Amino acid sequence: MSTAFTFNNHASDGAARCGEISTPHGKIATPAFMPVGTAATVKAMLPQTVRETGAEIILGNTYHLMLRPGAEEVAALGGLHAFMNWKGPILTDSGGYQVMSLAKLRKMSEEGVTFQSHIDGSTHELTPERSIEIQCLLGADIQMVFDECTPYPCEKEEARSSMELSMRWAGRSKAAFAEHGKSGQALFGIVQGGVHPDLREASAKALLELGFDGYAIGGLAVGEGQDLMLQTLNVTAPFLPEDRPRYLMGVGTPEDLILSVARGADMFDCVMPTRSGRHGQAFTWDGKVNLRNARYADDPRPLDETSGCPAARDYSRAYLHHLVKAREILGAMLVSWANVHFYQDLMARMRNAIREGCFESFAQETVARLNAGAGKET
Amino acid sequence: MSTAFTFNNHASDGAARCGEISTPHGKIATPAFMPVGTAATVKAMLPQTVRETGAEIILGNTYHLMLRPGAEEVAALGGLHAFMNWKGPILTDSGGYQVMSLAKLRKMSEEGVTFQSHIDGSTHELTPERSIEIQCLLGADIQMVFDECTPYPCEKEEARSSMELSMRWAGRSKAAFAEHGKSGQALFGIVQGGVHPDLREASAKALLELGFDGYAIGGLAVGEGQDLMLQTLNVTAPFLPEDRPRYLMGVGTPEDLILSVARGADMFDCVMPTRSGRHGQAFTWDGKVNLRNARYADDPRPLDETSGCPAARDYSRAYLHHLVKAREILGAMLVSWANVHFYQDLMARMRNAIREGCFESFAQETVARLNAGAGKET
Repeated sequence: MSTAFTFNNHASDGAARCGEISTPHGKIATPAFMPVGTAATVKAMLPQTVRETGAEIILGNTYHLMLRPGAEEVAALGGLHAFMNWKGPILTDSGGYQVMSLAKLRKMSEEGVTFQSHIDGSTHELTPERSIEIQCLLGADIQMVFDECTPYPCEKEEARSSMELSMRWAGRSKAAFAEHGKSGQALFGIVQGGVHPDLREASAKALLELGFDGYAIGGLAVGEGQDLMLQTLNVTAPFLPEDRPRYLMGVGTPEDLILSVARGADMFDCVMPTRSGRHGQAFTWDGKVNLRNARYADDPRPLDETSGCPAARDYSRAYLHHLVKAREILGAMLVSWANVHFYQDLMARMRNAIREGCFESFAQETVARLNAGAGKET
Repeated sequence: MSTAFTFNNHASDGAARCGEISTPHGKIATPAFMPVGTAATVKAMLPQTVRETGAEIILGNTYHLMLRPGAEEVAALGGLHAFMNWKGPILTDSGGYQVMSLAKLRKMSEEGVTFQSHIDGSTHELTPERSIEIQCLLGADIQMVFDECTPYPCEKEEARSSMELSMRWAGRSKAAFAEHGKSGQALFGIVQGGVHPDLREASAKALLELGFDGYAIGGLAVGEGQDLMLQTLNVTAPFLPEDRPRYLMGVGTPEDLILSVARGADMFDCVMPTRSGRHGQAFTWDGKVNLRNARYADDPRPLDETSGCPAARDYSRAYLHHLVKAREILGAMLVSWANVHFYQDLMARMRNAIREGCFESFAQETVARLNAGAGKET
């Protein structure tokens, strides 16, 4: 393990934590939301604009990048940071989730997965060793073990054997990282086990035995619903060490983030702010705003006149409605920007509430406000 | 006519002129290139970014805006400047060209044109009076007379009767502008007459008789080719007054702009930089770069490392190639930005060369360089 990767927990408020991660490309205040830069771009946003929203780390997708432009190609161009002109830290996933959700004709074995590209049908293989090699070629500051994304729903025995395979792959990932990882880079383990508390416990203990720089909770936000997701987080977090960051993968809505921070999660990623942005769905403190709705055609109000984000502050809902209806690229640009800014603002306010010891009341008031606003938008 | 709209010609070099237009929303250095903001957005660019390229004026399309969101709707939201958050001058066209190129089921009469929207098939009418009313509702600083876009090629008699109709419409446009136009707003006449010198002369004289704040040359860049376009400019410009700006509509390539400035044109508009940008075609001082080309897949060079434009300077051709191939919105954003910047840089260099009295050598060297580069790109 590196010496440069550190996590310091500066303040706690109940189970909620406020801290700081250090990486070779800079620091990350936690709880942190990582915008998703799937194909070496946070969609419809300049990297500089992403940074200006307050985002300190972004996520890159191993599956997408290995297929196009290719990990060796990115490495030859100086690595992912240089390639996409992002100067801050980058976390890459392992490719496991996308192989299951996007690729065709998968074939699983103890060794790994062979699959066909969703882009051109070409055949590829991902193993723990190759996943880590790719993440090292990309130059990710934080890398993830290669795991099998357990389907949901599934039988408990299927969840068990899938988790146990992922734990064996975690060991192989760690060995590969020891060989390829550079000083300061970090490797996170991923707790699996579906919605079964005993499997989650076994998975967490297996990972702790191996030892990682941080611990992710995987296999959630895959259709189990918010209640089961939070229950699983409840029963998993106590098995994770206090002195390592906890990353809840693929989560979520603003409410999901608040309720998960309340349960001790430190890091999140989700395509929601950018994907919703491209579809004209804006996040505001009064809930979601569907800009396609005709009610906004003559609405001179901005999304949030008090926002520090130009996209939320300087354009009327009527204009955004027009752009979305006319399928103008600027619509995707502005709403994605406003959404990523909103998510970062939410994280900053959560960090502040934790430091001030008022996280519980902040969480209750904010969730209530988000839901009250959402009721008006039908 | 207003008192606030002025044009001052500061320097001449041969037929090329360098001057300044004043409008209610600010000044415009000429020769000027106006990025096209068809549907109240210069496609894939933030208005602030458009301004930072050096663009001082943009063009809005009456046809698109009357159909969506509607002129009265834009007026109720504070006019086009406020609607799209563009603080500088705006020129609107009259809708005549788009009615002919985009609308369905057109019916022409002396009165005007009825047509069906290309968006939803709804029926609309444009007359000189309605076109000016719309442009005033939008709040355009520079407005254009409603004209018929003469098809190309066409018989001379058809070109004559089309031109004569446009001249009658120019008179009606002027009367409507006298009624609706606000202080400081300007109305430009449009010379028609196809590629026939005597028709162009007759058209120019008819417009001068009416008297306008500026004079456009219309009906070119419609398929006649560069030679005929320049010949027509050659025979038309001498009939236009020295003390009014001359606007060559819908032009053009970088070479077109240079050769047209050399013949006394002051203003231009064209979708080329933004449309090419969305298709991965970049303009550089060494000619066009087709970023889809596989030769750029591993090219670490930016489009132009000496550019003041971040899009041209801070991203490799390999990265732009990747974005274009993956159809990422950021590809359209970056290449459009680089292209609009290139066009504005070209105009700035032309203005400088005119002021320094070296326009002819600048023009020759630049055209040669653009063409030498273009030869390498196959």
